[in-house]
Amino acid sequence: MARTPIWRNIADTLGAEIAGGHYRPGDRLPTEAELSARFGVNRHTVRQALAHLAEAGTVRSRRGAGVFVTSRPTDYPLGRRVRFHQNIAALGRQASRRLTRLETRAADAREAEALALPAGAAVHVVEGVSLADGQPLAVFRSVFDAARFPSLAGELQRHQSITAALKACGLADYTRAWTRITAKLARPTMALALEIREGAPILRSESVNVDGAGRPVEYGRTWFAGDRVSLTMAPEG
Amino acid sequence: MARTPIWRNIADTLGAEIAGGHYRPGDRLPTEAELSARFGVNRHTVRQALAHLAEAGTVRSRRGAGVFVTSRPTDYPLGRRVRFHQNIAALGRQASRRLTRLETRAADAREAEALALPAGAAVHVVEGVSLADGQPLAVFRSVFDAARFPSLAGELQRHQSITAALKACGLADYTRAWTRITAKLARPTMALALEIREGAPILRSESVNVDGAGRPVEYGRTWFAGDRVSLTMAPEG
Repeated sequence: MARTPIWRNIADTLGAEIAGGHYRPGDRLPTEAELSARFGVNRHTVRQALAHLAEAGTVRSRRGAGVFVTSRPTDYPLGRRVRFHQNIAALGRQASRRLTRLETRAADAREAEALALPAGAAVHVVEGVSLADGQPLAVFRSVFDAARFPSLAGELQRHQSITAALKACGLADYTRAWTRITAKLARPTMALALEIREGAPILRSESVNVDGAGRPVEYGRTWFAGDRVSLTMAPEG
Repeated sequence: MARTPIWRNIADTLGAEIAGGHYRPGDRLPTEAELSARFGVNRHTVRQALAHLAEAGTVRSRRGAGVFVTSRPTDYPLGRRVRFHQNIAALGRQASRRLTRLETRAADAREAEALALPAGAAVHVVEGVSLADGQPLAVFRSVFDAARFPSLAGELQRHQSITAALKACGLADYTRAWTRITAKLARPTMALALEIREGAPILRSESVNVDGAGRPVEYGRTWFAGDRVSLTMAPEG
């Protein structure tokens, strides 16, 4: 009978420690050097064990940061008020946003329709990545009426939060009018931005937020990493 | 310069007719024999053109039924009352359900928790496929408390509708308590049931419906074909 390779034993040991809660979702595992010392093996063997756990989806390595225990999908509530920072903070995680594009241009047909603007009206377009504890959860693109919010581009750069930027533009509150969700496969650029593999499942949402008078203020499209996020709804809640 | 192959010209012609509304989503295209006659080519050339349109997602062939213009994703509302037959009928489409499995067994831990039952309580499990105009939209698995609805299995076979079967068991109304949605890739058995390719995107929902007293009556899991369905929500509606 073939002997179980050492890397496999190490992977099983670490896997059992993760399953048992010794290392919890989001925890960083000890470094390769620490694991080599602990198991009395060279780093090549440790790397084999970690690669095996990564392939099984138990851990993931973040370039330059280390190897982390995979989190269960993050429940992301779609209620009357959908607020990225609040949703993530409520889970005890650190929310951040990285803006990747900010431009003012003519609305396309779909954007104009969603915002109830005349065809070709000027809109601010903001694109970026939403992260929880530094891990990308979603790529987003939001579009706003530029005539109504002339200073929004600057406020978005200052605040990195749509809610805060809209408040600075005088909009105190807004609520979700509708959301449409579908499933897609990650294309190369999306995979790169979300740090997932090409062809991985994507939850794509399309939504409109309105002001107190029911007038559309934001048309948003979001591409969530399907393995990291579950969208939740509780009509009563 | 290379000449455009004939099949390509035929595909372009049909594609333009579809784009122009001459053939509409859900329409059946003429048969291969009819297309051969129209374009004055052999059936092999027609098949090449149709294969090209199928690959582009413009048409799909259904075994034995013909080649159909692909429908845009069906908007499927997740409101307070989620009713498959009503949702599909509201779009002017023919709703049907094919039950593939009906059994009574002990609940697993997740099912017991969702239905607020003691571990190992007996549940009815119904699995099947939901179709619109004969095209599979989703595979579903629903679980019910067997002690509360002793005759449900028989009623499901009689009615093919969960709403009708529950009504026959004395439950006049039920509402959605929560829904959780994520994106997955189709595994082989799921792909076969939905008539999609392996690895195609799937919208998976998990949900609980409750009675008027807020007591869970149905724990459901549904796997929607991502290319065919968009889940929609309007919190106010």
